[in-house]
Order: sequence, then C-alpha cells, then structure tokens
Amino acid sequence: MNNLVQQLYEAMERMQWDAMLITDPKHVYYFTGFACDPHERFLGIALVQGQEPVLIVPALDGDKAAADSSIKRIVTHKDTDNPYSILREQLPASLHTFGIEKAHMTVQRYEALQAVVQAAKVEDIGQELQALRVVKTDAEIERMQAAADCVETVLGNVVERVRVGMTEAEVVAELEYEMKKQGAEGPSFSTMVLTGDNSALPHGIPGTRRIQEGDLLLFDLGVYLDGYASDITRTFAVGEVSDELKAIYNTVLAANEAAIAAVKPGVTFGSLDRTARDLITEQGYGEYFTHRLGHGLGIDVHEYPSIHEQNEDILQPGMAFTIEPGVYVPGVGGVRIEDDVIVTKDGVRVLTSFPKELTVIGV
Amino acid sequence: MNNLVQQLYEAMERMQWDAMLITDPKHVYYFTGFACDPHERFLGIALVQGQEPVLIVPALDGDKAAADSSIKRIVTHKDTDNPYSILREQLPASLHTFGIEKAHMTVQRYEALQAVVQAAKVEDIGQELQALRVVKTDAEIERMQAAADCVETVLGNVVERVRVGMTEAEVVAELEYEMKKQGAEGPSFSTMVLTGDNSALPHGIPGTRRIQEGDLLLFDLGVYLDGYASDITRTFAVGEVSDELKAIYNTVLAANEAAIAAVKPGVTFGSLDRTARDLITEQGYGEYFTHRLGHGLGIDVHEYPSIHEQNEDILQPGMAFTIEPGVYVPGVGGVRIEDDVIVTKDGVRVLTSFPKELTVIGV
Repeated sequence: MNNLVQQLYEAMERMQWDAMLITDPKHVYYFTGFACDPHERFLGIALVQGQEPVLIVPALDGDKAAADSSIKRIVTHKDTDNPYSILREQLPASLHTFGIEKAHMTVQRYEALQAVVQAAKVEDIGQELQALRVVKTDAEIERMQAAADCVETVLGNVVERVRVGMTEAEVVAELEYEMKKQGAEGPSFSTMVLTGDNSALPHGIPGTRRIQEGDLLLFDLGVYLDGYASDITRTFAVGEVSDELKAIYNTVLAANEAAIAAVKPGVTFGSLDRTARDLITEQGYGEYFTHRLGHGLGIDVHEYPSIHEQNEDILQPGMAFTIEPGVYVPGVGGVRIEDDVIVTKDGVRVLTSFPKELTVIGV
Repeated sequence: MNNLVQQLYEAMERMQWDAMLITDPKHVYYFTGFACDPHERFLGIALVQGQEPVLIVPALDGDKAAADSSIKRIVTHKDTDNPYSILREQLPASLHTFGIEKAHMTVQRYEALQAVVQAAKVEDIGQELQALRVVKTDAEIERMQAAADCVETVLGNVVERVRVGMTEAEVVAELEYEMKKQGAEGPSFSTMVLTGDNSALPHGIPGTRRIQEGDLLLFDLGVYLDGYASDITRTFAVGEVSDELKAIYNTVLAANEAAIAAVKPGVTFGSLDRTARDLITEQGYGEYFTHRLGHGLGIDVHEYPSIHEQNEDILQPGMAFTIEPGVYVPGVGGVRIEDDVIVTKDGVRVLTSFPKELTVIGV
C-alpha cells in the first residue's frame, strides 16, 4: 500500500468512517496511478477499515488497471453486471458510517448505491481528500515542473511565430497544435489569447480580432502532462505601446514579484493577495484588479486553496498554486502575469521561468 | 416561449410534476439557446405548471443570457448569494412532485436543494428530456449538417498532408489544428488516428507509432460546431495493402452501405445492427465486429438511441445517429467506416459525404 492510500486509512480512522468509496477518476488516478476515463461505467476504490483496498473497474480496463494501479486487489465488472452488487460484496454486512464523494457522485448513482448498501450515516469525504491533495509530494512536484517546462516551450515557440494581422483564434490554434507536438495530453483549460480591448476582459473569448501594432497581447495557457496541470500567463507588447500600458505592465509585474517574494510557510493566503492588491491600489489601479490572486494547482487546474483576500488559511511546505495579479482598464487594455509556485521549507520555488520584462513581439 | 419549452410543459403535465429543474448546461443550451459553462456555479431553468419559465444564471453571465436566451425571465445570483434560496423564491410554497436531472445533479447539490425546497416526491426527468431530444428539428438538422461539413473539410485537408513516417499523434495534432482553423469549437471527442496493428483496436490510443507503407490508417474524428456534434470514420490505405486488408475493407463498406439503405421510419434499431452484422458474418468476420453499429448524435456526441442488436425501439423521422460497422483482426489490421444519418419521412439523409472507396494516401 503506498503512502497516499495509507493516509486514506488514517483519515478513515480519525473520522470514524467504517468504509469509504472514491469515485472521481482524478482521485482514482491520484491514489493508484491508474488513469481511466470510465465514461458512464462504474469506477471506484472501496476502502474498509482493517481490510485491503479494492479497485473496481470496467472489464475493458482490467488489463490497464493491473499494469498501472498500486492497489493490486482489482475486481472487474462487465456491462451486464450490476457494479453496485459487486461493490456490496466488498463491504461488511453492517455499515454504520460510509464516506462518499458527494461533489462527484450523481443522485442517480447514489440511489443505485443505496439500493444495495445500507449505512446508518453517509458522509462527504471531499474535505479530507482535499486536505490530502493540497500538500504535494516530491514526485508530484517534479511532474508539475515538467508540465510547467512543457507549456513554456509551447509559449516560446509560438511567440516567435506571432505576427501582426493574425487573429486571436489563429494563435490559439497554433498554441494547441504546439502542445500536442510537445507531448502534452492537452490544454489544461480553454487557451486564451486576447489582444487590444479584449485583453481588458479577464475571461474574454478569443475570436476573429486581429493583432495590431501598439496593442497588448495576453496569453493564458496551460497543459496537462502526465496527469498534472500547468498554468501560465504572459502579456506582450506588439511593437511600441503607450506609456499608460507600460505603467500598467510595470505595476502588475511589481505585484506579481512582491506576492511571490512573500510566499513562505506560516503566512496566510489572504496576506499574499493583499500584498499584490495593496501595491496595485497604491499605483491607482486597485479597482481594475477584479479577481483573486490565484488558485491551487495539481491534478486539477483549479483546486484548493483559493488565494483570495479573506482566506486566512496558512501556507504549508508542498502547497502548489498560481500567483496571477491583473489590471484590466476598459477601453485601454489589460495585463496579467501568472506564475506557478510551490511553498518550500523556508520560502518559495517558482516552477515557471519564462521572462517577465515587457517584451516586444510580432513586428 | 419556444416550441421546445412548450413541450417541457406538456411533459410536466403528462407526468404530473408540479415543477421541474433543468441543470445540465447542455440542456439549458438546448431549451434556451444560451450556451454557458458555469463551472462550479449554479445554472438552471425552473419550470412551474401555470407560470413562466425562469432562467437562473451566475451574475457574470447575466448579459450573455439576456442576449441569447429564448427564456426572457432571467434571475442572476452573485457568488455571495445562496442560489438555492433564489431558486426557492421561484417555486410554490407547497410542492408535491418535483422533477430534477438525477444523472446530472450531484449529491452535494441535491442536499443543498433539499435544505430549501421541500417536495413530497423527487422524480428523475432524464427520460423525458431524452425523448424530447431524440427527434431533431429542421434547424437542428441544418446545424448537424454544418458540423458534418466542417469535419469533412478538416479530414480532406489533413489527408493531403499525411506522409509515411509521421506518427499517429502528429496527425492528431494536425487534425485538431485544422478544426480550429475551420472554426470548430473543438473536437467532439478524443481524435483517433490509428495505423497498422493499432487500427485493430477499436478504442486504441494514438501514439508514437509511425505510418508505414502497406498499413491501413484509420481516422475517427468529429467537431462541435454551433453546439452540435459530428462524428466520422474513414480508413485509408498507405500505398498498396494486402488482399486480406482489401477484403476486410470491402466487407465493412458493404455493411455500412446496407445498413444505411435499411434506414427508414418504422424499422427497429436492432434490425439495422443485424443487417450490417449478418453481412459481416457471412464474409467470415463476424467475431471481429466487436461493438454496436452506432449511437445517437446531437448536442452530445453519444446520446440516445444506442444502435445495438437488442434495441427494438422504432426509427422515427428526425432521429439522428451514426452507422459505423468495423472489423478488427488482431495482428492484421482494422477497418471502420462511419457516417452520420438522419431518418427522413420515407428513408434516410446522410450528412457525411466523404468518399468511401478505398483510397491510397501518404505515398
């Protein structure tokens, strides 16, 4: 049993759950190393106090599970089987408290489960899983570094090909093509390339707007590689840009660097957000920084923690998240600069290393 | 109120539900024309017998909803609101039977809903929604035609660029790049390009295997365009292929054409599958046709109906599905030929028109 699965048993004991069922395929991957998209079929890990864990998989995926999973007791089910009856065989006859993933399981599946598994109490295990995931192991951090390196190669290669006159959507197509060429599983979210006024929309949709000289060009992209996500934003100048845009750029860059410098164990997430926000406010752009500072990163591109002003949770070594201040001035333009960081024993490791001084491209 | 929403009220009356809540974003799009990915936020249509329908959307998306939605009563909620309390305000104080999407709603959301909405019975509306979706309107069929045209342009452009020595994954990257260039929202499923032995795996994963002369090359791809999916498979010869591969190809092509010719109102889905299967069995390849004949197609790339041997449901005009017989001989190679069809008043309309005679490419 690997250390992560061991921690599940410890959580089960601490929470006084007799048994638990993990059903989110991302969590199955996280705990076993077995990646599987079961579509509508049942996939889960059944854990019972005092018993070996069991991985229940569609018959189609049985060979891959046997090869990849660290949990070696594997039970398969065919399309003609009721997977919940098979699950029932893995559980004790009498169950007091049963933990499930309430944010993942649908009502339909829950009703099928209730038809075969009687438990006095059904609890949500989501918080406990989140707590386990938030501190990354060294092996996870190396995968995140590889995902960051990959997206930086993609960005570097495409930036060289950007030219005035290309549309935002064309640049997105180039980026996603390059991701595949660099071996990524795919984008970790909808790739964003925004120029001119569009860059002033923090969640704008890339379209047919053409890149023009004097505009800013904002790239926000990430990849999944080996199951882990990266996420980077860089903003470039297309030719010479106005002094106002340069002032905005320098403000955001200073906020990004100050927040990164403040990362260390023991401080709060809220304090990081305020470090960046105060600096931007001092420069007169506070009202234009309209979102949180960042978000957790790992097997999901957005996971716990949320780096916002009110979050007084404490940073611990091994936590991974983005730092991405932005300033979006309607009718003028927007800048965001985003890095991926890991909290270390005494400070910070920055996974992303793409240059951050304002760079002219496309002309 | 558009005709589709009218049909929801008719279903509600027929099923004796006081109210219903539609929460799958695909269904919100289907019934209102408003496309939205709400991420973790609440999105839904609340319908109560005798009242106007209400669309509940995140505040961020309020302007887009107002512009796009055919349901004009729109209520927005901010991140600091409890969306279920807002939903409660749209429902009568006393509710006997409440219909929800049990295959979409998570247990977590269901518990939040139950905390504010008391209903004596909670029923699943999934079957009724499926029944509404299965017959496509003329407007839907035109969108499906556009999605089919788009993927055929993509396939045609990339096939010309395929060369011996390219890897499967490189061809996938080319296809997905071309999809973006042709204006698709994206692939409608994981694009598949398989060659040689890999083509004998019906759900193989494209990898670093290089295209070689004498191999078959199987493409299975689709796009989402304007919210509707297409899905096409064609198999090509890389240079001259063996007589056995040609025999397999001609068997699959005959099965594809026979099944398409059998499409008309009144016959069963099972009979279509058997038409193709019997023909393949007569040629000695029955054991190698290891999957169903096809699947429904629309706003999902896999939706009701399932075209398999045991499905005795009856074809009706306006139904849309794929016809995709395949033969996969381990160690030899595999062929699949897939078209998208619509049942018409007296026969069939085939949306895909890419040539089907065995074509030599790549050399």
